[in-house]
Amino acid sequence: MLSLDKVFNAQTVLKNIIRETNVVRAYGIAPDCELYLKPENLQITGSFKVRGSAYKIAMLTDEEKKKGVIACSAGNHAQGVALAATKNGIKSLICLPDSAPISKVEATKGYGAEVCLVEGCYDDAYAKALELRDSEGYTFVHPFDDENVIAGQGTIALEILNDLDNIDAIVVPIGGGGLISGIAYTVKQIRPSVKVYGVQAAGAPSMYNSVNDREIECLPSVSTIADGIAVKKPGENTFRYVSEYVDEIALVTDDEVASAILALIEKQKMIAEGAGATAVAAVMFNKFDLKGKRVVAVVSGGNIDVTSLSRVIDRGLLKSGRSSSLLIELIDKPGQLKEISRIIADCGGNVTGVHYEKGDTESVNGCFLRIEMETRDFEHVNLITKTLRDEGFKLV
Amino acid sequence: MLSLDKVFNAQTVLKNIIRETNVVRAYGIAPDCELYLKPENLQITGSFKVRGSAYKIAMLTDEEKKKGVIACSAGNHAQGVALAATKNGIKSLICLPDSAPISKVEATKGYGAEVCLVEGCYDDAYAKALELRDSEGYTFVHPFDDENVIAGQGTIALEILNDLDNIDAIVVPIGGGGLISGIAYTVKQIRPSVKVYGVQAAGAPSMYNSVNDREIECLPSVSTIADGIAVKKPGENTFRYVSEYVDEIALVTDDEVASAILALIEKQKMIAEGAGATAVAAVMFNKFDLKGKRVVAVVSGGNIDVTSLSRVIDRGLLKSGRSSSLLIELIDKPGQLKEISRIIADCGGNVTGVHYEKGDTESVNGCFLRIEMETRDFEHVNLITKTLRDEGFKLV
Repeated sequence: MLSLDKVFNAQTVLKNIIRETNVVRAYGIAPDCELYLKPENLQITGSFKVRGSAYKIAMLTDEEKKKGVIACSAGNHAQGVALAATKNGIKSLICLPDSAPISKVEATKGYGAEVCLVEGCYDDAYAKALELRDSEGYTFVHPFDDENVIAGQGTIALEILNDLDNIDAIVVPIGGGGLISGIAYTVKQIRPSVKVYGVQAAGAPSMYNSVNDREIECLPSVSTIADGIAVKKPGENTFRYVSEYVDEIALVTDDEVASAILALIEKQKMIAEGAGATAVAAVMFNKFDLKGKRVVAVVSGGNIDVTSLSRVIDRGLLKSGRSSSLLIELIDKPGQLKEISRIIADCGGNVTGVHYEKGDTESVNGCFLRIEMETRDFEHVNLITKTLRDEGFKLV
Repeated sequence: MLSLDKVFNAQTVLKNIIRETNVVRAYGIAPDCELYLKPENLQITGSFKVRGSAYKIAMLTDEEKKKGVIACSAGNHAQGVALAATKNGIKSLICLPDSAPISKVEATKGYGAEVCLVEGCYDDAYAKALELRDSEGYTFVHPFDDENVIAGQGTIALEILNDLDNIDAIVVPIGGGGLISGIAYTVKQIRPSVKVYGVQAAGAPSMYNSVNDREIECLPSVSTIADGIAVKKPGENTFRYVSEYVDEIALVTDDEVASAILALIEKQKMIAEGAGATAVAAVMFNKFDLKGKRVVAVVSGGNIDVTSLSRVIDRGLLKSGRSSSLLIELIDKPGQLKEISRIIADCGGNVTGVHYEKGDTESVNGCFLRIEMETRDFEHVNLITKTLRDEGFKLV
């Protein structure tokens, strides 16, 4: 059973393994409330997951430690287990589907784990991990549905309450529910007036649905850029804790998450992964009643690969009018690109791409010109399109 | 005159204005040494600059405070002065060239400054600021060549020495030299055995040249993505301090800086601007003898606009083989795109762009196909190009 003692014990045990990440004030992200961030993206391994794994592993018997641990994950949990096992001087084996990105495999090995690549999908790797547990005697470290793992995550609440007084609410991402179970349980024992709000991705609302329907439900599929919380089915323990201690759960869309990632980059100079930015997204887009409140959003992790990050930034720029693309129908005669370039330059736009495209133009000599530009905002885009129209160009 | 007393006094004065940014261990960036970062990109206003400005302003007489301060900057210094003045309850006026990006102007206003847009370039804005100082009685806050500004930056050294024992070296970006003057002076008074290394951008080596030639030199022009340290001429005070207290200065290229920005994103989940990443770049690319040493690199700021960041990431992906572009000469017959797509997919590449281009092909029916892909690394790119060649395609 979970107890406050366990959470305090976890804090002591974790002292030399994890970083105590200090709560920071976030300006300019959510003007209506006094927002603070708990930056677990700056945690060692880039995610809070190491807390739960490390406490779970530290609590094993000597006999269990000698046999080692096994886990199944392509993400933050794998790295957490690997590092925690290495720091405790025990063996760890991580089962991964063979489709896992090389970078994840390398990162997991880098923290000292052995990696077992399993043909097939996540479920196949999971089955293999259970098989190896039974045949080899490894202890299976569950990513969320385990009292010691939950107690480890609960240490985040102790740090928040120690850093900051008079908190009104803590907002926490939910995947399987381990993180929020630990935080909500701890907070409600120590300072029950503090609200604990959960956030799921709209494309993976398993806990949201389960809590609303008062029974554990399993989603047929999940799809979200917040891949770290794309969990089909809540745990039995976590479902119970969330139902009892969490005040409210909301959903955020992928575009809201992308905006939150961009805001964290611009205002806080920090990288969050999709899952890590969901709590901030919920605050930014007013999913809870937080006006005038002192709020802590947990940024749970920062392990986003740079290719995805680049896409999120590009989308964010497009969605905020800082990059844009025009399609102009031209009559194919000399000097038109020159004229268009001049207009855009005069308006202060910066051309980054030009493509001529054939297509179903009005005139048989016509063609389409696609212009990509860096712009300041939507007003700036409108100025450019209006000027082009005023000078007789046909924008599609 | 600078004195250790002043630096300690600055630390007290700054206590309620700035954040004490804690030194963090950086894994995986420079395997040959024990690297720590002093993350002044997480400082309030996104840069260390606020330290110097705030101490300078706090030390003004009541008379001077009543009249307010003036500065000339389009960047971090402007925001530092603005915030410091606001926190001290005095007026600040910032002169900017009218070509300054809207975002910088808005950020400066956001910290409570009045902004005076001056027609022309930086030098024109600077002249205007001096004119207004003389006519209106404002105190001019120099961005670096001022003893109190330097003392304020020196507080960074106090924090580093307090956070970490047995440091061998501190690596610091150099623009005008205010930051490194403060740090080097302070470190050499307290713990003279610690080496202080300076880093400039290869495209703006003003202090590097001046120190080497033992006299202050002025560059005709500067060009670097580290725009925060693109300074044409060192200050007289900073030149003196750097000559006396800095052990060595090295230069880093724009590509090295871009790699450092990318490494900080991937390994540390933090955003640095070009100037802010130069010290890390110098460590990564072995500009100093740091093997086996305990080293602190100062990440001086994080104010990079997202458009530039997006470009840096794109370049970094290209330079590390994680995105790539192929040009294939085709004979214009049906089914070729299908075949190429199949080969790339079989090799695990992810196509992100396809363009047909006409050009000087061997056959009159020929054309060029440009394929953009996400790839894992250069080895992966080579696998794809080799397979395409083996199947008879002609890569240009």
